[in-house]
Amino acid sequence: MHPAPLLKDLDPRLNALVMDLIGRVADKWTMTVLEVLAEAGTLRFTRLAEAVPGVSQKMLTQTLRAMQRDGLLLRTVHPVVPPHVDYRLTDLGLSLGEAFCGVWTWAEVHMERVESARTAFDGRG
Amino acid sequence: MHPAPLLKDLDPRLNALVMDLIGRVADKWTMTVLEVLAEAGTLRFTRLAEAVPGVSQKMLTQTLRAMQRDGLLLRTVHPVVPPHVDYRLTDLGLSLGEAFCGVWTWAEVHMERVESARTAFDGRG
Repeated sequence: MHPAPLLKDLDPRLNALVMDLIGRVADKWTMTVLEVLAEAGTLRFTRLAEAVPGVSQKMLTQTLRAMQRDGLLLRTVHPVVPPHVDYRLTDLGLSLGEAFCGVWTWAEVHMERVESARTAFDGRG
Repeated sequence: MHPAPLLKDLDPRLNALVMDLIGRVADKWTMTVLEVLAEAGTLRFTRLAEAVPGVSQKMLTQTLRAMQRDGLLLRTVHPVVPPHVDYRLTDLGLSLGEAFCGVWTWAEVHMERVESARTAFDGRG
């Protein structure tokens, strides 16, 4: 009932770009890698895999590559034998991690309310 | 190189629940419905579908049902002929919308940097 503008009234090109980007980064693996690297600074692949519970090697590789392409992540290959590769966030990645911080906090704070809502909904049959 | 705790060091049950919830709500349709209803207040299905560009009826129906189950959304059936159904956010849904607000703002502000990063990455072949 409010006269507030809806999304479709905004610049359609900007809107499409923002939705595309949101669709890419609003992914639990991307969000978790942002969180882990924001805490840890720099990690090798193996340590990163340990810190992201439940991720497969393939999914982690895809996530890291997409994040690198989006400019969120730096992948550094150290020219030693055997080669040593590590990952850290760019300033852009750090800023996205901060933006998602509110969502993590929300999930932690409201977890039990969501669980109760689900139980109530499922019980209504 | 920092001694900061990684996710795996947190309470594993809380961590699994938070990741499950993030996986559910970090979805571009959920995020867009939160944004649209936060702006518009109450909408019928048809108006909501118009305001979420590119969503199919089936996907919107699934998204609304999952949001209702999570306690984010109220679905009201008005007993008139023909029946009239509308949707609005609960307080829980409004608070999640606010938490995601930073991500929308980030996407709008940093869109061009992400586009440039993608072009540079793809050009490296």
